[in-house]
Amino acid sequence: MKLNQNGRIQADQATQLNELTAVGFTPDLDQSLSDAANAAFRKLFPEAFSETAKQQALASVAVNGEQDLNQFLASQPTQISRTDFYAVALQLLGFEPKTDYQLADSLKFMAETKLPVVNADIATTADFWSAMYLLLCTRTKHLVTLLDALAARGFYRDFQAGKKTPEYLFFNGKAQNVFDARKIHREVVWIESDMDTDHDGKRDMLETTIFRPQETDAGVKMPVLFTANPYFHGTNDVDWITHKPDPKLAVKTHSYTKDEVTYTPTTPAELPHQPVTGESRTAEVYSDQGGSYMFNDYMLGRGFVTVYSGGVGTRGSDGVRSTGGTSETDSAVAVIEWLTGKRRAFTNRTDGIEIKAWWCNGKVAMTGKSYLGTLSIAAATSGVAGLKTVISESAISSWYDYYRENGLVVAPGGFQGEDADVLAVDTFSRQKQAGDMLKIQAEWDKTLAAITKDQDREFGDYTKWWDERNYRNNLKNIKADVIIEHGLNDWNVKPANAIRYWNGIQDLPINKKLFLHQGQHTYLDNIRSLDFVDQLNLWLSYELLGVQNGAPAALPNVTVQDNVEPETWHTYDEFGTADAKHTDKPYNLQNDMASKRAGFPDNATAIFKEDKEDSDGFEAEIIKPHSKYDGARLWLDLPAETKDVTLEGIPHLKLRLWIDQPTAILSARLVDVGEAKRFAPVAGVVDAGGWNLGYDYKTVSIQEFKPAKETASKLVSFGHVNVQNQKNAYENAPVTPGKPFTVDFDLQPTHLHLPAGRHLALIIHGADMAQTQRTETVVNFHIDLAQSTLTLRYRK
Amino acid sequence: MKLNQNGRIQADQATQLNELTAVGFTPDLDQSLSDAANAAFRKLFPEAFSETAKQQALASVAVNGEQDLNQFLASQPTQISRTDFYAVALQLLGFEPKTDYQLADSLKFMAETKLPVVNADIATTADFWSAMYLLLCTRTKHLVTLLDALAARGFYRDFQAGKKTPEYLFFNGKAQNVFDARKIHREVVWIESDMDTDHDGKRDMLETTIFRPQETDAGVKMPVLFTANPYFHGTNDVDWITHKPDPKLAVKTHSYTKDEVTYTPTTPAELPHQPVTGESRTAEVYSDQGGSYMFNDYMLGRGFVTVYSGGVGTRGSDGVRSTGGTSETDSAVAVIEWLTGKRRAFTNRTDGIEIKAWWCNGKVAMTGKSYLGTLSIAAATSGVAGLKTVISESAISSWYDYYRENGLVVAPGGFQGEDADVLAVDTFSRQKQAGDMLKIQAEWDKTLAAITKDQDREFGDYTKWWDERNYRNNLKNIKADVIIEHGLNDWNVKPANAIRYWNGIQDLPINKKLFLHQGQHTYLDNIRSLDFVDQLNLWLSYELLGVQNGAPAALPNVTVQDNVEPETWHTYDEFGTADAKHTDKPYNLQNDMASKRAGFPDNATAIFKEDKEDSDGFEAEIIKPHSKYDGARLWLDLPAETKDVTLEGIPHLKLRLWIDQPTAILSARLVDVGEAKRFAPVAGVVDAGGWNLGYDYKTVSIQEFKPAKETASKLVSFGHVNVQNQKNAYENAPVTPGKPFTVDFDLQPTHLHLPAGRHLALIIHGADMAQTQRTETVVNFHIDLAQSTLTLRYRK
Repeated sequence: MKLNQNGRIQADQATQLNELTAVGFTPDLDQSLSDAANAAFRKLFPEAFSETAKQQALASVAVNGEQDLNQFLASQPTQISRTDFYAVALQLLGFEPKTDYQLADSLKFMAETKLPVVNADIATTADFWSAMYLLLCTRTKHLVTLLDALAARGFYRDFQAGKKTPEYLFFNGKAQNVFDARKIHREVVWIESDMDTDHDGKRDMLETTIFRPQETDAGVKMPVLFTANPYFHGTNDVDWITHKPDPKLAVKTHSYTKDEVTYTPTTPAELPHQPVTGESRTAEVYSDQGGSYMFNDYMLGRGFVTVYSGGVGTRGSDGVRSTGGTSETDSAVAVIEWLTGKRRAFTNRTDGIEIKAWWCNGKVAMTGKSYLGTLSIAAATSGVAGLKTVISESAISSWYDYYRENGLVVAPGGFQGEDADVLAVDTFSRQKQAGDMLKIQAEWDKTLAAITKDQDREFGDYTKWWDERNYRNNLKNIKADVIIEHGLNDWNVKPANAIRYWNGIQDLPINKKLFLHQGQHTYLDNIRSLDFVDQLNLWLSYELLGVQNGAPAALPNVTVQDNVEPETWHTYDEFGTADAKHTDKPYNLQNDMASKRAGFPDNATAIFKEDKEDSDGFEAEIIKPHSKYDGARLWLDLPAETKDVTLEGIPHLKLRLWIDQPTAILSARLVDVGEAKRFAPVAGVVDAGGWNLGYDYKTVSIQEFKPAKETASKLVSFGHVNVQNQKNAYENAPVTPGKPFTVDFDLQPTHLHLPAGRHLALIIHGADMAQTQRTETVVNFHIDLAQSTLTLRYRK
Repeated sequence: MKLNQNGRIQADQATQLNELTAVGFTPDLDQSLSDAANAAFRKLFPEAFSETAKQQALASVAVNGEQDLNQFLASQPTQISRTDFYAVALQLLGFEPKTDYQLADSLKFMAETKLPVVNADIATTADFWSAMYLLLCTRTKHLVTLLDALAARGFYRDFQAGKKTPEYLFFNGKAQNVFDARKIHREVVWIESDMDTDHDGKRDMLETTIFRPQETDAGVKMPVLFTANPYFHGTNDVDWITHKPDPKLAVKTHSYTKDEVTYTPTTPAELPHQPVTGESRTAEVYSDQGGSYMFNDYMLGRGFVTVYSGGVGTRGSDGVRSTGGTSETDSAVAVIEWLTGKRRAFTNRTDGIEIKAWWCNGKVAMTGKSYLGTLSIAAATSGVAGLKTVISESAISSWYDYYRENGLVVAPGGFQGEDADVLAVDTFSRQKQAGDMLKIQAEWDKTLAAITKDQDREFGDYTKWWDERNYRNNLKNIKADVIIEHGLNDWNVKPANAIRYWNGIQDLPINKKLFLHQGQHTYLDNIRSLDFVDQLNLWLSYELLGVQNGAPAALPNVTVQDNVEPETWHTYDEFGTADAKHTDKPYNLQNDMASKRAGFPDNATAIFKEDKEDSDGFEAEIIKPHSKYDGARLWLDLPAETKDVTLEGIPHLKLRLWIDQPTAILSARLVDVGEAKRFAPVAGVVDAGGWNLGYDYKTVSIQEFKPAKETASKLVSFGHVNVQNQKNAYENAPVTPGKPFTVDFDLQPTHLHLPAGRHLALIIHGADMAQTQRTETVVNFHIDLAQSTLTLRYRK
């Protein structure tokens, strides 16, 4: 087990002593070491209310083979050896002697587990408090630090007692769990937007749910973690609208210019405001559902109000969905404007009783995964004031990169046949209120028909409609600091969404951090081997509560999980940049790779249908060294590596080819080849319910990415291109059967540790049963290998 | 979807009106129907605090294609058609028009879903309240009744306001969620037992954790749900002690008499009591962990204190484990004695400060699954006063039936190599406190060695040691009412444990109920198709709170889930009894079954090892009509059924055979044969987090048993016998190679719906790789089919 930690900051002795005092210790350097230790260790058992109960607890901990901690402390020690201190420390951190480690070998286990230790035996009271400070900041077996685990056991139970206004508490730069997550106001309000997306002549009201610690009633102002969550009130059945992969690929006849595909925002007509008839400090409607995101829930007790809003077309709100259109961006921005006092909200839809976010300190962060994270990127590109940081996880930065690729319809991994209209239906949760639907059905039918038409599944081109949904057009507007988290194996929202966003903000004068893990479309919060949540706490304490903890400098710019060594995370200053730390290698397909032939007929659909295979089956089969799709692909081996190398960045493929048809789907896959135990695609539970989100509050299971059974190969990166889109995703380059042409496109970004003895292979094939249309015309591909190149970037 | 309900009781009009009033409605029969409906429907939106918010909520519900509920009520209706009422009702129950049902067809959907409806359109105010009462008692899509769902949304938020002493509330015979599950005292106390199992000359102190609603502080006395849970403080690694299946089966030389295997309890020596030095009403130690069982947590807010205690040898307690021995029974009984004022507890281990269960009303129920349920059966057989009912789920009633069978070592399904000593190590959580272990290691090593010896893996006989762990010896002492829940596919704790217990208590003057489901080793609480939790609430309100709801008569004696029709539960008065409702059919293996041969060589271990198969693989393979174990088994087909039949009870097998060795393992499996989509072995999640355990409190996922992909056959029942145990599990009947003998034994009890066209098959084989030793001597079996009989009982 490795408990990596990047969110712990250095503190000088004076700071350490001040912080220890603030959390309730009494570090007096004039006291004897024995007295200091006796007092300090007793405080580490917050469940024990009496001296006897504390001694009983101390007696449960072994110091060595002879003494328990109660006996040891009673012996008034004048020094504590490092071995003894960490033998005890490990038990406090949740490890068990014999099972996990040997008492006499505590230091060895600390080192193996990547836990920090002091440099010398503890000889003075000052030494002791220094070691205790470090120990409180050390990660336990259960995800969080010791002090945080103590908080979940009641360490701060009495912290607010006797204070007129509840106070924040910080330790090692991070907000502590001193508010009561169980005592929450669950309020619903309606925010008045500037839009009328359902064309009823009235401003769309946006239902917003607030989870607000009751301590705000006593005057403490809190910042907000806002999650724009279209799924908050549930989703609808989409079976009926999910598309069947098309057996034909249309030959493109139209070509767009850059201007034709550039979206220009329109200014909405000014609409009458709801007249204000009164004001209330409390809501009229209590939320019928709880918080939906573990990280938000975790931060509640640390003094962060959490807010959810589904946006236009979701249950309780007006309007219609647009699948990432400006109306959804504006929905999220409206919430931030209300939170920061620049927009009105009401206690219900009709009475005109205004309600202000009087408890808000004016600072907002956005959080969320997938669509939720997507809307945080969207909101950030508005430049709205008060939005201090956006933490987007597995998020889309351009919807074209989600549903299309290089002039092709491409499905998100796992969801063949999904498209913008499908997602619109999915999230139009107004539908769940049948009474509301009586009024909106006709308008919604019209809106949905327009989305289906505009998304254009026939030609797959980048159009004005998609340009509206490309948030990267507006990156220059971003004022918020940025955290990006993404899975390197996320074939649903593909890594290009994260890396193109990351690359696009490099020159902006904002702080930015990137986290890449080995999972698919998933959270990083509860992965044991990294202190992600603690790093976010450091970040948010800095961003939203003004704590001068140096978070921007303290946290690594780039954190990437290794794909070979379990529980190993690399930190870098940059990712995949063309700089002195990287080198580009062009591989000529003729000279640098081994292939049995240079052409293939794409009859994959016939094989697929014959075997009644599903998308998962295809994805597993197409990357096997020996596959039933052998005839329908080129397999090109790169040389085996003689030492470990690290591939990083965006692989680029240039192919010179001809085909015997006027159009075709071309797919390319980069695979890691060689029998090896690679990580399972999904992190497994290592500690069920092991993460306590607060004191006597919710629990979440802790997970880890673990090696699974041996496989012969694994997908590293891939890409798809319509051969008519040789220049870009909107211009049409007609293909003449038999006449050579060049396609030139990026594959998905990657970070791959390729161990010595393994090698890469490039697979070139036609239709991708899991993601593209399933074309039935057999296209014969002929690649001019000598004029084709794969370019890879390596970290030196 | 079928929402079966057996826990709803009939109530006359006066009772209905009283109960409606008690929960906050104002049913005035002199009021107009319109006024009554307007008031009542408004109360069904407890999240809406203002009249406008209520109207907004009413408007979200459709009555028909033209009107929402707000418009409908505003029109002052003088009657409500059944179709309209249930169109509305279904939305209140969580269903969606269009997606789940059509507004105009609401009655059809109510019927399909097994939801109750009134008989006629609502024409009077009396009709309305009658329909409303029924609706409040109707199950929602989310497991619980509408009223219970409303409670989880705050319906009872203000119920205790203004009351000096908090009060219970009952509706339709069931305790309502009027206490606050979030405000709980988590107390730890030490109960003084009469035992000294660790031989330190002192009474073993038993650490016990109490979760007590704070309303008890104001004087309300509450009953207790007590779970004797050896896993409460975690388990230990058991890899090192798990046994390897033996390649040899010992030839028995010793034969026991009945007297020799009869356990006689010994009276422990009287030990000095801890002197009492004072008394406290509050504990000194706060529990560092929360409740561990969803059903207990669910009942907290209904006014049931929940208590957990691990017993001797678990973390925080004294003593050593005995794997089901009398010391563990006595541990559980001691807790009940303390709760009912007959035994002392202290606030810590040493100071002598007594603490009483002053908040307890003197009535206790025991709950729990597996080992936890086992200890509730054990405690019930003590006849301890105050224990009113035991609800045991998937529980062991004799440990011989868990680790042994008919003179053989037999592993619990899924845990090959487990035994009593393994489980002792597993649950000896004192080991987690290394300081404590310094004092107890030597004593524990001695105790464990004795368990390993006494369990006797060499011969597998029923001995005095196992007799101590056979709770069925003492069934006559049971005074508590009994609920038994078990999975018909539980091959871990096998169904014989439940049915032998059930059969053994038939003549006792107690109330008893049996629930059998199609799962394995699992809970029934969160299975959507049955209102199990509601039935338990009815039962516990009767047993522990004295509510005269007629629960013993209202609940079916036997409830069994159908294995063919999804979401279908049968209710019976009895299970598998020899009576007029059942018929026994003896099948002669020669005349009534079809077999290709009469003998086989048991070389299963060789095939198993050759293929490096695992237990799961063996279990799947051995029941296939064509299997790699074909040569190592007899497959005997019974005739196919021409109409649906129901097998019920205990299959019995009498075999006349000879073998060419002095001993052998003989296994028999009864399988259901015929291609069909049978239920998946494990219930799947149908509603993630859909069950609210309280108001703004924990949530649990709702599950259902669902048909999975087609299989050719499925295990129905099985059994194993040591051929030297021809009479019973302790007498040795020597076997002479070549000489015929008879074995005569029960298979596991079953309840099987066998549809027309399918048939049963009997498989006779030798060693069972998943459960018995893996013997390598090839034994040749020769069955005298003409003198062998399988007897099955059918429900007429």
